Amino acid sequence: MPMTSLLVLRRTLVLGVLLLLSGAANAQTDPLPSWNDGPAKAAIVTFVEKVIRPGSPDFVPVAERIATFDNDGTLWCEQPAPVQLYFAVDRVKALAPQHPEWKTTEPFASLLKGDLATAFAGGDQAILDLFMATHAGMTVVEFEQIVKDWIATAKHPKTGKLFTDMTYQPMLELLGYLRANGFKNFIVSGGGIEFMRPWTEKVYGIPPEQVVGSSIKTKFEMRDGKPVLIRLPELNFNDDKGGKPVGINQHIGRRPIAAFGNSNGDKEMLEYTQGGGGARFMLLVLHDDAVREYAYGPAKGLPDVKLGAFTQGLYEQAKRDGWTVVSMKDDWKQIFAAGR
Amino acid sequence: MPMTSLLVLRRTLVLGVLLLLSGAANAQTDPLPSWNDGPAKAAIVTFVEKVIRPGSPDFVPVAERIATFDNDGTLWCEQPAPVQLYFAVDRVKALAPQHPEWKTTEPFASLLKGDLATAFAGGDQAILDLFMATHAGMTVVEFEQIVKDWIATAKHPKTGKLFTDMTYQPMLELLGYLRANGFKNFIVSGGGIEFMRPWTEKVYGIPPEQVVGSSIKTKFEMRDGKPVLIRLPELNFNDDKGGKPVGINQHIGRRPIAAFGNSNGDKEMLEYTQGGGGARFMLLVLHDDAVREYAYGPAKGLPDVKLGAFTQGLYEQAKRDGWTVVSMKDDWKQIFAAGR
Repeated sequence: MPMTSLLVLRRTLVLGVLLLLSGAANAQTDPLPSWNDGPAKAAIVTFVEKVIRPGSPDFVPVAERIATFDNDGTLWCEQPAPVQLYFAVDRVKALAPQHPEWKTTEPFASLLKGDLATAFAGGDQAILDLFMATHAGMTVVEFEQIVKDWIATAKHPKTGKLFTDMTYQPMLELLGYLRANGFKNFIVSGGGIEFMRPWTEKVYGIPPEQVVGSSIKTKFEMRDGKPVLIRLPELNFNDDKGGKPVGINQHIGRRPIAAFGNSNGDKEMLEYTQGGGGARFMLLVLHDDAVREYAYGPAKGLPDVKLGAFTQGLYEQAKRDGWTVVSMKDDWKQIFAAGR
Repeated sequence: MPMTSLLVLRRTLVLGVLLLLSGAANAQTDPLPSWNDGPAKAAIVTFVEKVIRPGSPDFVPVAERIATFDNDGTLWCEQPAPVQLYFAVDRVKALAPQHPEWKTTEPFASLLKGDLATAFAGGDQAILDLFMATHAGMTVVEFEQIVKDWIATAKHPKTGKLFTDMTYQPMLELLGYLRANGFKNFIVSGGGIEFMRPWTEKVYGIPPEQVVGSSIKTKFEMRDGKPVLIRLPELNFNDDKGGKPVGINQHIGRRPIAAFGNSNGDKEMLEYTQGGGGARFMLLVLHDDAVREYAYGPAKGLPDVKLGAFTQGLYEQAKRDGWTVVSMKDDWKQIFAAGR
C-alpha cells in the first residue's frame, strides 16, 4: 500500500470520526424548538430520557411506549367550534337540494339560514341529527373521499387559514420527538374516527390504524357484486370521557405511558394512564392565549357545542396528581404549524 | 502504519466482503422451509415479490402492506373444539365453588359432569351463557392474568401438547416472511380479543394493537381510588362473517391486501380484501390431513360448537375467484410449530 493510499485512509478515518461527532451534535439539538424553556418542556424531556435509558429504573421497552393524544384543542384548534362541525354544516348545504324537507326541519332549516344559535338550541339531539344526516348513508370509501375533498380546502372562519394549518407546531414537534424515541403515538378523540383518518397520516404522521375515535355502525354488503361497507345512521361508540379508556383498551390493548389532552373529556384517559405501574406522563394544554389563539375555560363562543371544558376542578386535580399543565401563552413560542 | 497493521486491515476488509456475501446468500435461503414446493407456495412468493419490487406495476408502499389472519384453524388447531372453549370450561370448574346454583343450571350442570353434548344442546344461547359467566365480572387486568396463567399450562386433549405448541409452523414462517417484507400482520378472529392478546406477541410476534376479535363491553370506573376497566356480561362486537370487514375497518382503517382464513366465517374478509384495487392475495387453509391433524369440512367432533365450515360453496368460490387453497396434507411438510 503506497503512502498516498495511507493518507487517503487516514483522511477517511478522520472524516468518519467527524461525521460521528456531528451526528452526536445533531442528536443534541433541541427537539422541541417551539417550546420555551420552563417546567413543561423540562418535564417532557425528563420523562422521555428516563424511560428510554437502558438500565434506568424507569426504562420502558419500545413495544410499551404508547402515547395517546386527544385531537380537538390538543393537536389543533377547536374554536370557535370543532372542525367536524364546520364539515357537517357544509355537508348540509351541499346535500340540501336532495332534501327539500330540511327547509322545515330543525336543525337543518336554521343551519341553512345561517342561524347557528337556533339550530343548536336543540342540544345534543340537534347535533346527533346533524351528524347522522351528513355522516351516514354512503360507503366508507365514498365518505373518505368526501372528507379528503373537504379538508383540502376548508378554512377557519376567523384566520382564513386551512384547518390543517391550525395544528399546533409545539405538539407536532412533540409527536416527532416521541416517535424518534420509539413511541407509538395514537390519537384518542371524541371526534369521528373516519373524519380524522383521511388526513392524520399526512398532518400528524399518525396512520389510520393508530386513530381511535367515535364511530357510527357500518354494515358489510355486496352492492352490484362489489363488497362494500355502508355507514349506518346509528351510533356505534362515543369515544369521550369514560369512553376514552374503553376505546384505548379496545383498539390498543395496552395502557398508555403518556397521555395528552385539554379538557374534562380527557380526564378519564389521563387517570387511566396514571393508574398503571412505572413512569407515567400526563399533560393538559391550557388555552390561555387570547391574542394568538383563544382563551377559554368553560366553552364560549357560538355555536355553543359543549366543548369539554377545562374546569377549575380538573385544574386542581392536575396540580394534586402531578400532571403537567401547558400554558399556551407562556410555554409556546409559536402556536400554529410552521412552513405549511 | 507497520506492515502487520496493513495485513490486519486487509484481513478485516476480506472478512467484511465475506460477511456481505454471506448476508446476500442468507437472503436467498428459503423463507418458507416447511412449505412443499407447489402452486400454493409459489403463489405466496410471487405475490410478495411483485408488491415489494419498486417500479413494479403492483408495487404497494410499506404503509399499505396490511395482512389479516383468522386465528382458529388458520394459525392454530381448532379441533376437536376451539381453544377458548376449553378455557371457558376450565373456568367453570374453577369458579364452581362460588356458584352453587350451577349444579342445577345449564349449561353449567352438564359441563361440571363432563357431559359436553348435553351442555351444548342449548346451542348459541348455552355458549353465550358460558362465555358471559366466565369472561365477565373482573377487571381487564385481572382477566389478562387469568388467561396468561391458563395458557401457560393448558394442553390439547388428544396430543397432550401445549395449545400454543399447536400453532402451524408453515403459518409462523409465513407471518415472519411477510413481516420481513414490510407487512403489518393483524389477527382478525371470531375469538375473544382479550383472550388472544395476552399471548399473541410471544407466539405469533403480533402485538396487542394488531389483534382484532370479538369483545364484550367494558366500563371505566374508579375502584378503591384506582382507575379500572370492568368487563361486563354484554356482547360488544361479534367479529365473524360480515363482522370481519367491519372490525377491520374499525381497527385498521385500511383494506388488507392479503387475507388468510379457513372457513365460511372468513368469506367476507376475503371478499373485502379482493374488492380493493391493485394486487391482492386471498388464501384458505383446507384441513385435509386426518393423520397429522384433522380432516374436516363441515365441523365434526364433540362438542359440536358450530365451527365455521369450509363448505363446498366456499371451495367453488375460491376456485372461481382465484383464491389460493392450501392442502395441509400436500402443501405442508410439517404441521405444528417446531422447536418449542
